[in-house]
Amino acid sequence: MIIDCHGHYTTEPAQLTEYRKAQLDGLAVDPSFLPSRADLSISDDEIRERLEPAQLKLQRERGTDVTIFSPRAVGMGHHLGNEQTGYYWAEICNNMVRRVCDMYPDKFVPVCQLPQFPGVEPKKTIPELERCVNEMGFIGVNVNPDPSGAMWTDPPITDKWWYPLWEKMVELDVPGMLHVSGSCNPNFHHTGAHYIAGDTTVFMQLILGDLFKDFPNLKFIIPHGGGAVPFHWGRYRGLAQDMGKPTLDEHLLDNVFFDTCVYHQPGIDCMTKVIPTKNILFASEMVGAVRGIDPETGFNYDDTKRYIDGTPNLSTAEREQVFSENTLRVFSRLKL
Amino acid sequence: MIIDCHGHYTTEPAQLTEYRKAQLDGLAVDPSFLPSRADLSISDDEIRERLEPAQLKLQRERGTDVTIFSPRAVGMGHHLGNEQTGYYWAEICNNMVRRVCDMYPDKFVPVCQLPQFPGVEPKKTIPELERCVNEMGFIGVNVNPDPSGAMWTDPPITDKWWYPLWEKMVELDVPGMLHVSGSCNPNFHHTGAHYIAGDTTVFMQLILGDLFKDFPNLKFIIPHGGGAVPFHWGRYRGLAQDMGKPTLDEHLLDNVFFDTCVYHQPGIDCMTKVIPTKNILFASEMVGAVRGIDPETGFNYDDTKRYIDGTPNLSTAEREQVFSENTLRVFSRLKL
Repeated sequence: MIIDCHGHYTTEPAQLTEYRKAQLDGLAVDPSFLPSRADLSISDDEIRERLEPAQLKLQRERGTDVTIFSPRAVGMGHHLGNEQTGYYWAEICNNMVRRVCDMYPDKFVPVCQLPQFPGVEPKKTIPELERCVNEMGFIGVNVNPDPSGAMWTDPPITDKWWYPLWEKMVELDVPGMLHVSGSCNPNFHHTGAHYIAGDTTVFMQLILGDLFKDFPNLKFIIPHGGGAVPFHWGRYRGLAQDMGKPTLDEHLLDNVFFDTCVYHQPGIDCMTKVIPTKNILFASEMVGAVRGIDPETGFNYDDTKRYIDGTPNLSTAEREQVFSENTLRVFSRLKL
Repeated sequence: MIIDCHGHYTTEPAQLTEYRKAQLDGLAVDPSFLPSRADLSISDDEIRERLEPAQLKLQRERGTDVTIFSPRAVGMGHHLGNEQTGYYWAEICNNMVRRVCDMYPDKFVPVCQLPQFPGVEPKKTIPELERCVNEMGFIGVNVNPDPSGAMWTDPPITDKWWYPLWEKMVELDVPGMLHVSGSCNPNFHHTGAHYIAGDTTVFMQLILGDLFKDFPNLKFIIPHGGGAVPFHWGRYRGLAQDMGKPTLDEHLLDNVFFDTCVYHQPGIDCMTKVIPTKNILFASEMVGAVRGIDPETGFNYDDTKRYIDGTPNLSTAEREQVFSENTLRVFSRLKL
């Protein structure tokens, strides 16, 4: 059984992005513009036409059984529009993901985005989280640790500002992938800098804080292999030690998990060498950040299953943990 | 011959930090406060007392012949005070580093900090750069790609905003280490998040731009092993490819170098596997970010020579390149 824990709906029909554009264009003209809910006329065939030659084809080719599927990450754009627009947009995107999962119930399981907005308390996203989990069977949530879009104007994730959301996630028993969205700061390319910097930054926030003392059952996935974290594992172990914190294992590793969206063999080898196997969840983020074929291997950069298969650091039993067992444990609502 | 290309003066006598505090405290009371140059009464003995049991002792123990030495990175604090304060502060710090190098001419070679200030054109730092290189024998410069202190309010390093500084560095034949300083954003811990995120971010800026077409002789060192870059080498190769850029080798690797401030064996193994040996410069950043002893090895985390010695990815000749030959090539003014 192979579960890809990190896939986004990056093959959405054009109507969805056109709706978003109309929503934001309307606001640009009239800041009080309240968009009507989309009259999104998208047929099942249109959804199939774009999914079949992409995610579904690649699942078959690569042997992925099921993908944990959420709205396009850069599309969340929490810093765009206004608070009210964000509620509509999150609902529409989550409904689209639910629809895809209903069309392919064996292939996709839904994770939601939240209607976050910079400067707005995360607790205001709870109704949408409850709707998705309680009414629509979502099994997890993507939380943007920086809804400002690479301006980082909200408090760190260990701040009480975030606590009502963490409480609700524990109550609902859903893990959160800490995944930033687009960047409005020209210094940060989104997939090449903001994503990786964001992953690294939240891990360091967790080292500095004591969040899991307050929430021993809260579970976070840090995507893209944890940013720079495995590569700098010695630095992080050493910083925690110098600060008098417990070892990273005690301090964080009952609660923090890393996905395998690292697009070459030496990266996965480094990760599987230093991160305990129980903390690694298979993922590829396909179809996503990198779409080409690696001339060094002849295979897609994001065909990460090959790197898990190819690493000398995992036994057959450990590969099973990475491919499915860990994911089933972390996403406790996932029943296959 | 072993050259550590990345050491900071982190054992400065207390008078220096007290002077800085007085300078900033004065400004807090009176925004037009123009501090007098420090009457810094520091004796040679006071300098020796703090250097001997730290950098000098560790150089001896670890077998480092010489350290390329610059002012404390977090101490640069370009976002603190005002533009004028920054000029005084850079001069004082650079003079202190020159003094240390004069006291131990076989052990330290100087690299300067610049009087950068957020929103102020980098070209205004040129007089201090010229003073350091032409009048005081400095061989390189630390350039802060984000003088705002983790707010990232200035343009990316590929922007014309920076060009006069790059021109001058080429003219003077000094490489620049792209090293951020402190963070005034509570989201970013300085050594655990801002440094690593900054390293990653500037590399992605370089991928997006075409800076080395305009400056074929400009040389940058990205510290801390390049942040997340070697760990995500596949991602960066793939992003460049998807964007229609040349291979990273052609696009950047005549001009961009990475130091070895990565504090565990698997990190150095990953780096030496993917980054061409010619682009790797030995460094430890001691005494710096991580000061403890790794219980897994019994040695200091930042004793990076052990990881270079221990990696199976380098031949004896390649180790020589990393330990000294590459550094002598990149720092062309360094004559030993």
